Amino acid sequence: MNAVIAHGGGPTAVLNASLVGLYKEWSRRSRGGKLFAARFGVRGILEGNFVELTGIPEARLREAARTPGSMIGSSRLPLTAGDIEKIGRVFRERGIDCFFYTGGNGSMETALRISRAVPGLQVIGIPKTIDNDLAVTHHTPGYPSAARFFIQAVRDIGLDNRALPSPICIVEVLGRNTGWIAAATALARARRDDAPHLIYFPERRLSLDRIATDVETVYRRLGRVVIAVCEGQIDDRGQPFGADVDRAGSDVHRLASNLGHTLAAALTRKLGIRARAEKPGLLGRSCSALSSGIDRRHSMACGHAAAKAALHGESGKMITLTPEGTGLTEFENVARIERPVPDAWIAAGSNDVGESFREFLTPLVGRIDLPPSFEIW
Amino acid sequence: MNAVIAHGGGPTAVLNASLVGLYKEWSRRSRGGKLFAARFGVRGILEGNFVELTGIPEARLREAARTPGSMIGSSRLPLTAGDIEKIGRVFRERGIDCFFYTGGNGSMETALRISRAVPGLQVIGIPKTIDNDLAVTHHTPGYPSAARFFIQAVRDIGLDNRALPSPICIVEVLGRNTGWIAAATALARARRDDAPHLIYFPERRLSLDRIATDVETVYRRLGRVVIAVCEGQIDDRGQPFGADVDRAGSDVHRLASNLGHTLAAALTRKLGIRARAEKPGLLGRSCSALSSGIDRRHSMACGHAAAKAALHGESGKMITLTPEGTGLTEFENVARIERPVPDAWIAAGSNDVGESFREFLTPLVGRIDLPPSFEIW
Repeated sequence: MNAVIAHGGGPTAVLNASLVGLYKEWSRRSRGGKLFAARFGVRGILEGNFVELTGIPEARLREAARTPGSMIGSSRLPLTAGDIEKIGRVFRERGIDCFFYTGGNGSMETALRISRAVPGLQVIGIPKTIDNDLAVTHHTPGYPSAARFFIQAVRDIGLDNRALPSPICIVEVLGRNTGWIAAATALARARRDDAPHLIYFPERRLSLDRIATDVETVYRRLGRVVIAVCEGQIDDRGQPFGADVDRAGSDVHRLASNLGHTLAAALTRKLGIRARAEKPGLLGRSCSALSSGIDRRHSMACGHAAAKAALHGESGKMITLTPEGTGLTEFENVARIERPVPDAWIAAGSNDVGESFREFLTPLVGRIDLPPSFEIW
Repeated sequence: MNAVIAHGGGPTAVLNASLVGLYKEWSRRSRGGKLFAARFGVRGILEGNFVELTGIPEARLREAARTPGSMIGSSRLPLTAGDIEKIGRVFRERGIDCFFYTGGNGSMETALRISRAVPGLQVIGIPKTIDNDLAVTHHTPGYPSAARFFIQAVRDIGLDNRALPSPICIVEVLGRNTGWIAAATALARARRDDAPHLIYFPERRLSLDRIATDVETVYRRLGRVVIAVCEGQIDDRGQPFGADVDRAGSDVHRLASNLGHTLAAALTRKLGIRARAEKPGLLGRSCSALSSGIDRRHSMACGHAAAKAALHGESGKMITLTPEGTGLTEFENVARIERPVPDAWIAAGSNDVGESFREFLTPLVGRIDLPPSFEIW
């Protein structure tokens, strides 16, 4: 039995750990079956760019498991029906019996399409996304590390801001369409009036008037406001805040998101108060020093479970994390389904989270050596 | 003998360590002299907002020394001649014999003005700035920690970018008018073609044409470009890149810097290549987890040395760091003097640094547990 592993979408701080888990379990139990990696995701399959994963020394595996990014690359290439057919052809020609695909809900839709289009091919999904927006699974590998990074970042920035109050300080937090990571920054608070003073996530639309009122209220009381806002925040018309589209000449360039700064500029104009924005951006999903060891172990466990499931003849399913370990769910239950932060975990009448959310997240991020929150001496 | 300590300018990850050093040495040797902190810098002096530092338990001191921000606040308040006079009056009324002022070259000018205006007052400066642009001192407390943060950040972002090539990825690096921190990111490279592929700092002016040519050259070869650029970068006319000034109605709002994004947008327009920007911003000077232990010890040593100098009757001088320990220099040698990265340390014909710079920086940042640079398997 021969297999191919490919990744889809953005890397995480612990994505390599699931590859290492898969490789180890496959090496132990596949009875000589080969494991190939497609370099740079499905693009590697289409281009026949494979590498056999074999004989990797233990020390390199340990090193890889703590390295952010992806040892085999990844891609965001959207697949046409023709591409899917071609993938089936490549697999048949190379004698591939099993395909492992790592990713979020978009990648699981791709896995489902390939699974339906290529008869006889076993397809197993491995969950991965910092966004934590996959259905069924308790959480997704990658999320706890990103959450841990932003908790620490907001604590540190909050302490800096307390010492030299900057009237408005916006921290742009990763998260495509859901607010799981932005919500996590609530754990940066140790005392009343600790940052973040305001949290915004796209599960609740947000008008500029609303945020301006919120900001003014905190500013009047404290003289400083630290805001954690999800990069995917939408305004009250359902449009992204901070969409930066440039119409130079006849070309329309879709520029990268700049939500924090756009919001800072809008607040300065509206309130006449100085505002600045920080955007750790890709560092939030790649920061090795602040990643979560628990997250890394969970990611590795998903790799193990994927190898086991395939060798047990499973197909058309994604590995899930459960409070007890790992499980399996049909692709249909996760493909293109986006899981927002549950309503019950969002505090009523505000963009903040309650105790249930803290109870969910605390064990996942593990102990964080946060600097103590302080009052000015 | 009674003293006041105040901070000026932005906090660092290790500013509290110099306060702790000063407090400890003062408590040991001042023979009952009182030490007051002015809350929120010179503003605290003008408003009579003081707290006596006394009887602080060892455990709180240890905790404070590893806390970013400032336990006594800071300010950026510019002082009028009237303010300086008032500070002298406040000190006389309260029986203050000695004033410690922590900061960079702007703060040392303030210290010099106070020292000249208030007869009989001993004034001692304590160096502090992430920018490392103070003259005479070997380096400034705060700089090694900020450098260490950005080295790690660029390594991590570079690994992420290698896995999922984003054509142009700009990392905006702290640094007001000099490129010390941006230059430090050269230490993120372990192999050829590691990030950062391009480094820009304001010691060299930069035209958009030049950067576009540089970027295109790297992009053609690697398909990805990670750029570290100093937030204070100036263009070929000496103007700041990314100055974002908004003229809404009759008001002119000076908005916070947004250099990375502005540059990304300009490159996308010019080259038709997708670009994004990350701006860790204040996290770069406050990140507790990535601060440098060596930096913390140096900062504490400056506090010690300041107390000793004052008790030995010194005045009108700033503590310096030397390769052997600490020294003293007259305020006139550092006030308002900006030390750029030396020409000899900048590689000829490019915006990059050579071996002398690495030799200077390596011992200051200490061992960094960087994830290994890798080639795609």
